[in-house]
Amino acid sequence: MRKPYGIETLTDIALGVFAERGYDAASMDDVARAAGITKASIYHHVAGKEALLERGLRRALDALFAVLEEGGASHGTAMERLRYIVHRVAEITLALQPALTVLFRIRGNTAVERDAIERRRTFDRIVTALVREAQQAGDARSDVDAGILTRLVFGMSNSVVEWYRSDGRVPDPEIARAVVACAFEGLRS
Amino acid sequence: MRKPYGIETLTDIALGVFAERGYDAASMDDVARAAGITKASIYHHVAGKEALLERGLRRALDALFAVLEEGGASHGTAMERLRYIVHRVAEITLALQPALTVLFRIRGNTAVERDAIERRRTFDRIVTALVREAQQAGDARSDVDAGILTRLVFGMSNSVVEWYRSDGRVPDPEIARAVVACAFEGLRS
Repeated sequence: MRKPYGIETLTDIALGVFAERGYDAASMDDVARAAGITKASIYHHVAGKEALLERGLRRALDALFAVLEEGGASHGTAMERLRYIVHRVAEITLALQPALTVLFRIRGNTAVERDAIERRRTFDRIVTALVREAQQAGDARSDVDAGILTRLVFGMSNSVVEWYRSDGRVPDPEIARAVVACAFEGLRS
Repeated sequence: MRKPYGIETLTDIALGVFAERGYDAASMDDVARAAGITKASIYHHVAGKEALLERGLRRALDALFAVLEEGGASHGTAMERLRYIVHRVAEITLALQPALTVLFRIRGNTAVERDAIERRRTFDRIVTALVREAQQAGDARSDVDAGILTRLVFGMSNSVVEWYRSDGRVPDPEIARAVVACAFEGLRS
């Protein structure tokens, strides 16, 4: 007999469905089908589709903010901390791919989506301040605005959810390494 | 009296709605409201929402493929051609932002979406071959796979649709320049 689903497992499954079909196109029927249980059993755990989205987005954002508390994010020069953060964000993006995919794609159509976008902006502002510090130290290029640099670097890193599939295996560590190499040193040899 | 809408203007308006709300969440009512006409008048021009999507995606893809026919894409070293293409793709992404936004977000839920994804893959394969050529010439870094480099560079470039708003003005040429600088030389000074 299969163990009854807990809310965390249901969130996992919902995130997979939302990432694959898109949140707006996905229905609770899709989630129920993916979980192999009835819609009624899902409603036993959670109020609805938006509550699953809210949990999923929180999981993604908590993981990103936790990086800022790690030792590598608070020791060393601004450029060293930045490099550490970009690497860890790429690793988390790959490790929690469905959750991050959903986070990157929300449009702000509802209050839940807007709250998540606001938290993400706070994260970006913290990193932008670090980029500015690295520019002032002469370590980051200063011919491009710090906010634009931050967005371009995360644009590159976030794109992995569009093309990398770990298919349930541990994500290839080479991918996060490639993101850091390309973001900091560029395509040129 | 307002001039009656043609199909091209309607496609423009629909792309704006799809880019803002997401294609799946957007309805023909939303398109009619944005156009300031009735749904019936839209159906006079076009079979439905998917036909508008198909036109919009074709416009985005035609613009990308046209770049490959330009002089800068066929003269010079592989690295020079690559730099030209990345710059022009960034410019087009900004100039046709709603169309490209919709293209970047489709998930392959329908045949129309899958066809567009297939054309986009063909484009990526052509650019990947050029990256490989630049690697063989010693101009592009060869510690990262050519396919991954291509995806990371376009990931960075495509991200502009997520954060840059031209608000109807001519897009700032500094943005496309920043994409090229960051993609080829990286964040490091």
